[in-house]
Amino acid sequence: MFLTRRAVARFTRFCSTSTRFCSSAENTSTKTMDYLEDFPPGPLDHYRKQASFDWKKLKLFTEDEKLVEFKFKLWKALENDPLFHHPIETPSLDEQRHLATKRMYKLKAMKPVALEDILEDPRLPMVLFSSLFQYEPSTAIKFSLTFDFFTNAIRGMGTAKHYHFLEAAEEGSLGGAFALTEIAHGTNVRGMRTVVKYDSQNKEFVINTPDFEGAKCWVGNLGKTCSHIVLYAQLITPDGHNHGLHSFVVPIRDTKTLLPFPGIIVGDLGEKAGLNGVDNGFIMFKNYRIPRDNLLNKNGDVTEDGKYVTPFKDPNKRFGASLGSLSGGRVGICGLCVAYFVKAITIAVRYSGVRRQFGPSGSEEYPVIEYELQQWRLFPYLAAAYALQNFSLWFQGVYGTFVLKGAMGEKSDEQADLGIEIHGISSSAKPLCGWAARDAIQECREACGGHGYLKLSALGDLRNGNDANCTYEGENNVLVQQTSNWLLQVWAQWKQQKVVPKSPLGSISFLVHADQILQYHFSASTVEEISSVPHLLKAYQWLVCYLLTLTEKKVASLRASGRDAFTAKNQSQVFYARSLSVVYIEHFVLAKMYEKATTGGQPAGQAEVLLKCCQLYGLWSLEKHLGTLYQGGYARGPEPGELIRQGVLDLCAKLKPEAVALADALAPPDFILNSVLGKADGKLYENFQAALFRNPDTFARPSWWKDVIFSKEALSKL
Amino acid sequence: MFLTRRAVARFTRFCSTSTRFCSSAENTSTKTMDYLEDFPPGPLDHYRKQASFDWKKLKLFTEDEKLVEFKFKLWKALENDPLFHHPIETPSLDEQRHLATKRMYKLKAMKPVALEDILEDPRLPMVLFSSLFQYEPSTAIKFSLTFDFFTNAIRGMGTAKHYHFLEAAEEGSLGGAFALTEIAHGTNVRGMRTVVKYDSQNKEFVINTPDFEGAKCWVGNLGKTCSHIVLYAQLITPDGHNHGLHSFVVPIRDTKTLLPFPGIIVGDLGEKAGLNGVDNGFIMFKNYRIPRDNLLNKNGDVTEDGKYVTPFKDPNKRFGASLGSLSGGRVGICGLCVAYFVKAITIAVRYSGVRRQFGPSGSEEYPVIEYELQQWRLFPYLAAAYALQNFSLWFQGVYGTFVLKGAMGEKSDEQADLGIEIHGISSSAKPLCGWAARDAIQECREACGGHGYLKLSALGDLRNGNDANCTYEGENNVLVQQTSNWLLQVWAQWKQQKVVPKSPLGSISFLVHADQILQYHFSASTVEEISSVPHLLKAYQWLVCYLLTLTEKKVASLRASGRDAFTAKNQSQVFYARSLSVVYIEHFVLAKMYEKATTGGQPAGQAEVLLKCCQLYGLWSLEKHLGTLYQGGYARGPEPGELIRQGVLDLCAKLKPEAVALADALAPPDFILNSVLGKADGKLYENFQAALFRNPDTFARPSWWKDVIFSKEALSKL
Repeated sequence: MFLTRRAVARFTRFCSTSTRFCSSAENTSTKTMDYLEDFPPGPLDHYRKQASFDWKKLKLFTEDEKLVEFKFKLWKALENDPLFHHPIETPSLDEQRHLATKRMYKLKAMKPVALEDILEDPRLPMVLFSSLFQYEPSTAIKFSLTFDFFTNAIRGMGTAKHYHFLEAAEEGSLGGAFALTEIAHGTNVRGMRTVVKYDSQNKEFVINTPDFEGAKCWVGNLGKTCSHIVLYAQLITPDGHNHGLHSFVVPIRDTKTLLPFPGIIVGDLGEKAGLNGVDNGFIMFKNYRIPRDNLLNKNGDVTEDGKYVTPFKDPNKRFGASLGSLSGGRVGICGLCVAYFVKAITIAVRYSGVRRQFGPSGSEEYPVIEYELQQWRLFPYLAAAYALQNFSLWFQGVYGTFVLKGAMGEKSDEQADLGIEIHGISSSAKPLCGWAARDAIQECREACGGHGYLKLSALGDLRNGNDANCTYEGENNVLVQQTSNWLLQVWAQWKQQKVVPKSPLGSISFLVHADQILQYHFSASTVEEISSVPHLLKAYQWLVCYLLTLTEKKVASLRASGRDAFTAKNQSQVFYARSLSVVYIEHFVLAKMYEKATTGGQPAGQAEVLLKCCQLYGLWSLEKHLGTLYQGGYARGPEPGELIRQGVLDLCAKLKPEAVALADALAPPDFILNSVLGKADGKLYENFQAALFRNPDTFARPSWWKDVIFSKEALSKL
Repeated sequence: MFLTRRAVARFTRFCSTSTRFCSSAENTSTKTMDYLEDFPPGPLDHYRKQASFDWKKLKLFTEDEKLVEFKFKLWKALENDPLFHHPIETPSLDEQRHLATKRMYKLKAMKPVALEDILEDPRLPMVLFSSLFQYEPSTAIKFSLTFDFFTNAIRGMGTAKHYHFLEAAEEGSLGGAFALTEIAHGTNVRGMRTVVKYDSQNKEFVINTPDFEGAKCWVGNLGKTCSHIVLYAQLITPDGHNHGLHSFVVPIRDTKTLLPFPGIIVGDLGEKAGLNGVDNGFIMFKNYRIPRDNLLNKNGDVTEDGKYVTPFKDPNKRFGASLGSLSGGRVGICGLCVAYFVKAITIAVRYSGVRRQFGPSGSEEYPVIEYELQQWRLFPYLAAAYALQNFSLWFQGVYGTFVLKGAMGEKSDEQADLGIEIHGISSSAKPLCGWAARDAIQECREACGGHGYLKLSALGDLRNGNDANCTYEGENNVLVQQTSNWLLQVWAQWKQQKVVPKSPLGSISFLVHADQILQYHFSASTVEEISSVPHLLKAYQWLVCYLLTLTEKKVASLRASGRDAFTAKNQSQVFYARSLSVVYIEHFVLAKMYEKATTGGQPAGQAEVLLKCCQLYGLWSLEKHLGTLYQGGYARGPEPGELIRQGVLDLCAKLKPEAVALADALAPPDFILNSVLGKADGKLYENFQAALFRNPDTFARPSWWKDVIFSKEALSKL
């Protein structure tokens, strides 16, 4: 229970869903275990039997019993409905959009999550979202855009007069979308050029798009399907004053005909690298009028006679407050990355346990998982999947509670400190998770050899889906600057006052010991010592402090040589601020994983294997910073490099008997995994053959077969 | 002129194409310049004017005038034919196959390259292939499979009685394919299980597939279109003796009906992550009979009464000789990777020159190319594109000549030495190029932000196409072992006899100085010193020697501790043999680029800018080995890390005014680039808008529009 009864009552008036997949908290453990079916006997048994722990217990421990039950029930419901079955071949763009739309409404009618469940466990909306993503991302996005993003924006920025939009959205009688990005402005939100002017004579707002560069774009649902958008635009009052970005509910298509209203050019951005069930669109306005009431006026309003009124004195604060409702995106994306990541690593580890190739002459071929090279390619990602999953679930809980408290009016200093730290963590965690999933999926794809290139493997679609995570909600390389900017402010404060700001989540509290930390050196002389997590955390703390020092010096020297603040900041990113953000978040993810691994009361073998994952993730991540460890003098001589690298290989060897069961404890059911290479029964070739033989197109002669074999004459005529 | 007249005459009897795109060598320079059109004025002029060199002269210098003319004429011919125009939306799988088939034949009818041209310049077949790849990879693959791979296999392994297959293939009256890989055996070629037994009573061969795992698979053209395959299978004579892999021409579909013959199960592998115009298939045989003459019998034959005869005494040598005809694949793939790579980097650099985002407060926004971070993300890849393109073109020339000489009976020691060195180079160069293109495309995709995710950007398709390069013709991580195995043999010989084997291409000749090289230390004390290419080459030579020492020690210590040779080799890959292969080939690519950059007689500015690219590629590549440089004591203290990293940033800054023109000199024409983000005129937003508005689907209401907006009742009924 995260919240008080009073808080629940205050919040419920905004919402109207009802329960379905969440049962009461009693007796879940037996029931949940029912959902985790035993695997049928098969070729993976050889490795499954070697594991030192019970994969079901590990799954419930790492993912939380209640959440596991929730998602397995959800997935079972999807599997039982033919509308949710996976097409064999990628449908046409138009069919993908149609399918995603139908699935979205069907899913809504299933009522997958209820408000009382969310209040009980604020992680549920994000778990729902990432579970749907694991099933099929376009469906998940359509569902969220229509029933979360649009309505959350209205809840966050609107007032009572806008609640009718919420009801209409909930019952499906309007379709919403959320329009912020413009063709020429994505990451730089303040540069938006769509303009809304108040016309006090008609008591209307008039919307104009200056040119194509100022068209709203990338708006999900806008290409083909939505009837209303929440529009962000520069608000100009009759006195000519620009009050900055504000948001408006704008009807754009007639709900009776789905045709756009006059004064609007709205279109579809076409095919994308992935997520093609989502109709991302663009829109341009010419003297398009909406009622005065359509301004979402919680943080700023225009009176009937055209005066601007706001509860905020500082326009920057109003801007920040209105953007506050967007900040959950990054937290959610961490979960999506993990959702893709665990699918990819499950597929590659199971495949490696049954795929045989080469062997000593005269003997049977080895499963490729036996090769140290394959272990090194996959097991660090297997360990990273645990570390990032653990972090993401923890972060979703923290964020969910934070948002609920905020929605209920919590305005304490602690809430403010928490908000700042969440911003710093999410701005580096989303890039870390996005890049980690990107690299993991790619390595898994290659580690499955040619068969990984088949659509049947699922790996290509995972890559194309995850790819968007690296650029939306803030392009990763730009986004991490939010973290380093904050850390540099903290550092300046520390240097001046020897005080570190409050860190409710503990991600920066070690900085209070920075003076000592900067004196650390590598002290390990054995592989065991170097692999201990406290030792790894110390190395990371040193990296954070060292890079803070370097970055601060770099900025100062650029300023001293006459560069302006903007330039000095930009020229301190590569090898400095960017690396700083990365080591900061890697340290924190590692620390969180260590807490989880060392939780008391775990069943036999489980804590040990989690600790090994933790060690491998830490060592392998640290190895990438070896140059910097040496450069700064933390490491000297050959031993640190040799020990870290040997430590990675030793841990890979230790995880070999555990790897298949570790993948099992991450894996969704086969229906969700949807990969011929990674099925739970391990019957790789039978499944492969069955999938091919089941597809009617496999053996069909093409309708254009007469174009295939030519005569000499036909060829010469071409 | 690479070959003698006699050699030409001997070779021509195998071939029958005629010329079209190659004009005589006279006066090409004026004509070629015509093909390189000036760019229309536009937003990129700002940067184009800053370049210190003439991009056309650079292009002709780096890519060779004759080859530039050849491919620009080819591309113009494609652009002039509507069949070769790019569809707006990815067609269905079936339509993609149909289109690729039609284009393949149309292209053949165009007669893009003639034998006399090849003899004049043996790089032409590979340049044709990579130019077609730059246009559209499925068309290129279909063309090569049908008119090169199949026929080359027959030329390489067949005898006069098989030439009728060549004629039929050339005139299009049979469609060929090449069947080696099996479902359960890809990289381990010797593990193949398809069996061909000779039946001396009927004077026929009988083919059998043991089970689905032994089905031939991944065979391009086999899924839907081919009528004949060259089949690799274990040959068994009536005495029960297995003579190992041999190749056979096997008719599988009736050319009149395109239906498979009885005794065959042939099907399609379905959709893939990319290259979907190619119908990759699988095939299984049950007591399927072919005439005795269909054995390709150059290197081994079965007499009428069932006796095996071969010119080779050692079956390993026969195996090697029959696989020799495959070895060009890796050389070709280097070119394909470069073909994708240059498209991606052109798109991202041009986009960065016109896309503006952020800026100092109060001033206009900056083009993103102005940001050091963006420079660091892209310019090292821009430099790498030059280094790898230079290497690849050089290697194609070396390999083409090598093959022609071999085909004409050249059996000198030098030819043998060359074959060995080509094997060592290609086995690491293909992985280097594949991974570099993979990383470059991904970085370019992310560096273009959200718009890079649009199909209009072309980057997603480049990624999906290049992806296959990492696993076909030998999975990269397995393939590099060929190089390290060879280097370790060379090293053993050097240690025992202080002799390094002949290195006709010079890639290992420096090893003769290994004793001195291992004494090297970082001697630079300024950024300028550290950035000098001779200095970088020394560091790389040290890395090669150091990793040779480490790897050799690692293998020896594993053997000493009782591991068998197979295990010891496998446990010496990660951080040892694998890294060894990578630094070996990086060194060689850098050395080749340095030769090119320092070629005398270049126009003003050109040598300087090429040298900067060479330096940046070298420094940036070396930075990734910083940990190892420190671990082995080559680097000590903070300076090496600081200087290398500062050197990378300094070179990025120096290349900023050159970058757009450098991209121009790599770029194919807009029709081939096919990216809204990277068009030569730099009119990003106009082109983007035009592309959207040109697509009729952009503004179309979906046919299923009534499924979009729901009433409450409709929703509750779902």
